[in-house]
Amino acid sequence: MLPATILAKKRDGHELTDAEIRFLVDGFCHDKVADYQMAALAMAICINGMLPGEISALTGAMVRSGDKLPRCSDRPRVDKHSTGGLGDKVSLILAPLLATCDVDVPMISGRGLGLTGGTLDKLESIEGFKTQLTIDESTKLLRKLGVFIIGANAKIAPADQRLYSLRDVTGTVESVALITASILSKKLAARLDALVMDVKVGSGGFMKTLDQARELAQSLIRVGAQSDLPITAILSDMDQPLGAAIGNAIEVNEAVDVLQGIGPPEVRELTLQLAANLLSASHEGMSRDDAITKVTNNLDSGIAMERFEQMVVAQGGRPNFPRPIGSELMIECSADGWIEKVDCELLGRAVVELGGGRRRKEDRIDPSVGLQVHCRVGQRVKRGTPIISLHCDKRLHDEYRGPLQNAVIVSDQSVKGVPLIIDQLR
Amino acid sequence: MLPATILAKKRDGHELTDAEIRFLVDGFCHDKVADYQMAALAMAICINGMLPGEISALTGAMVRSGDKLPRCSDRPRVDKHSTGGLGDKVSLILAPLLATCDVDVPMISGRGLGLTGGTLDKLESIEGFKTQLTIDESTKLLRKLGVFIIGANAKIAPADQRLYSLRDVTGTVESVALITASILSKKLAARLDALVMDVKVGSGGFMKTLDQARELAQSLIRVGAQSDLPITAILSDMDQPLGAAIGNAIEVNEAVDVLQGIGPPEVRELTLQLAANLLSASHEGMSRDDAITKVTNNLDSGIAMERFEQMVVAQGGRPNFPRPIGSELMIECSADGWIEKVDCELLGRAVVELGGGRRRKEDRIDPSVGLQVHCRVGQRVKRGTPIISLHCDKRLHDEYRGPLQNAVIVSDQSVKGVPLIIDQLR
Repeated sequence: MLPATILAKKRDGHELTDAEIRFLVDGFCHDKVADYQMAALAMAICINGMLPGEISALTGAMVRSGDKLPRCSDRPRVDKHSTGGLGDKVSLILAPLLATCDVDVPMISGRGLGLTGGTLDKLESIEGFKTQLTIDESTKLLRKLGVFIIGANAKIAPADQRLYSLRDVTGTVESVALITASILSKKLAARLDALVMDVKVGSGGFMKTLDQARELAQSLIRVGAQSDLPITAILSDMDQPLGAAIGNAIEVNEAVDVLQGIGPPEVRELTLQLAANLLSASHEGMSRDDAITKVTNNLDSGIAMERFEQMVVAQGGRPNFPRPIGSELMIECSADGWIEKVDCELLGRAVVELGGGRRRKEDRIDPSVGLQVHCRVGQRVKRGTPIISLHCDKRLHDEYRGPLQNAVIVSDQSVKGVPLIIDQLR
Repeated sequence: MLPATILAKKRDGHELTDAEIRFLVDGFCHDKVADYQMAALAMAICINGMLPGEISALTGAMVRSGDKLPRCSDRPRVDKHSTGGLGDKVSLILAPLLATCDVDVPMISGRGLGLTGGTLDKLESIEGFKTQLTIDESTKLLRKLGVFIIGANAKIAPADQRLYSLRDVTGTVESVALITASILSKKLAARLDALVMDVKVGSGGFMKTLDQARELAQSLIRVGAQSDLPITAILSDMDQPLGAAIGNAIEVNEAVDVLQGIGPPEVRELTLQLAANLLSASHEGMSRDDAITKVTNNLDSGIAMERFEQMVVAQGGRPNFPRPIGSELMIECSADGWIEKVDCELLGRAVVELGGGRRRKEDRIDPSVGLQVHCRVGQRVKRGTPIISLHCDKRLHDEYRGPLQNAVIVSDQSVKGVPLIIDQLR
């Protein structure tokens, strides 16, 4: 087999065989297929797509490029994956919550790049919290607490990690086939029994339209089924941030609020729905209603918060909450009316510019920078109603007051609120 | 500008600006745009194409990546380029022939790879012939004799040379946009006044269908016009080899035959037509009929042969013809009938296997290996009519007798001959 011949096949829109896909991925891992060949393949896949069988073969080849997480208990093993959005701190709540429901949650998370934050960056605003553990260390944690949240290990799906860095710099990120394979290779290497996808739809997420979101969700469900991994998906709104907090320390604080029963209701609601999907999928005979009751009880009783603190300690962190954040500038509404739009891009960009996110991979993050959005689309407001709090170095307050006020558009006509959960797929 | 953003634009089928194309090509030359990024771009161009303006910008950027050949006489400067085919030895005749007609022919040729041979490999079957000259040496030759045939200089369109090596291994050779830019960048760097394209159509060439061939010819003519290079094109048949000889020394011998008035008529005919196009394009007021008369006279009078010998000597070679070839196995027709098909791929593969061509770039060539095809499609044959002569090491004769006999398909129904020149475009 010649790489160029296989690439030409995909270029011409033909289906690749399992053997051809395996040949390329294995070759890539062993430096027999070059970066430029994989980049050309990624571009051909972006444009011409892949059938579910091809995506499944690609996923399998990437799983086999590395190790799998060892089994360490009889508990079902589950995970949630989000396509990322502004203010998405669900993982911080969901992982310890599920661990209290007799399932293991070996959560491997990412860092923020561009407008959306990363779970690892948020956790690192907790003093001493370690996100890099060896497979042995993390297995021990899983056995003891049923949960960890760590960064990718170089031994898990290394082909995916290399391919992802290439895609990032070759304009080949936006491909349902490649996104599906990238997500699932890591989840299959973790030997999950069930996965729930939180596919964000809207200006603050990666999928801008409902059609795109649905296509990705369906691709994941279909390829998951071929690999014996049951997947359900929730399509959730990302035309405005999830909850109030956007940033790192400030999102940890909001997650802790939710774990203590006082956070924004939409963060709580989405977390419970996602958790219930996993619980009913991994416990035969448990109805979704039973699952909702169970996760709600464990959140409200405080044992999820307890598990969160145990996890923080087990990963080296000091559970002192709330985490310190920058000084507050309260921004008020300048007119009477209804909130029509919250400009996610503008908010996200402000946080990145202020040092709360990364423009480039090597940038360092200031965990104390953040925003709180006090209003939601459809809400009735008056001139003087608090709409946004900015938390950062005081000297920058004046510079951001105007732009941030513009991030919230007020209409003089009544505006309907938008549902948080748009659809559920299974 | 970010490479990934520009690549994503082409991925989504949008037109790139001149500045974006220049940014990528310049960056590629200065190691700021990586091989994997250019490979992904090449794949996106293969699939989504380029508009003439984009191809023109790409061509211009590749020309500017290197030097141009200096002007060295007042004579018009012309060249022919063929898309390559089995038995195509036209350059060996056309270049010296045109040099006798008061035009300069600075011919930069390539090597064979895959089934079709290369002019440089053919010339190197002449003892001592040097195909690598400096720009100074070749300029001197052009001033003195009006002709040279040499290999690409690393200083001429280096961006094209680097991109071509990438395309070769990433399945991105087959793109009208990229082929157009690759051919024209070298021709514009040579400061030509006129170019004629010989676009081969059929199983033995690169363009398998008439539509593909016409599309390439039109793209070349259009982009040439935008760059002030008048281009004409002849679409010629490549469903059977051009002339009888296929190989290296054996093709030089056939070219010498034509220069001496005794070669196969189709080689002579195509050479005269291509040469006349260039002569009339570069001499204002010269009709095509006058041009045909002029090139025919100079071929028949022997002065073209004389110029060929002078060129051989000037490039270090000894003009001893015919060049030695391997021992002959004559293969005869096994049935009565009409020649229906000559299998170019089978013939080409046999020559490569026997060492007369290259499977990989680093392979060495045995110049004495070759074939002669004694029949043409539509020809009446009888059992026992010589159809093919194989020239190679005697010990291999038996192995190839059967396969080569199968390369010529004989029908018991009458078959029409096919025209050599299919179309002319200008």
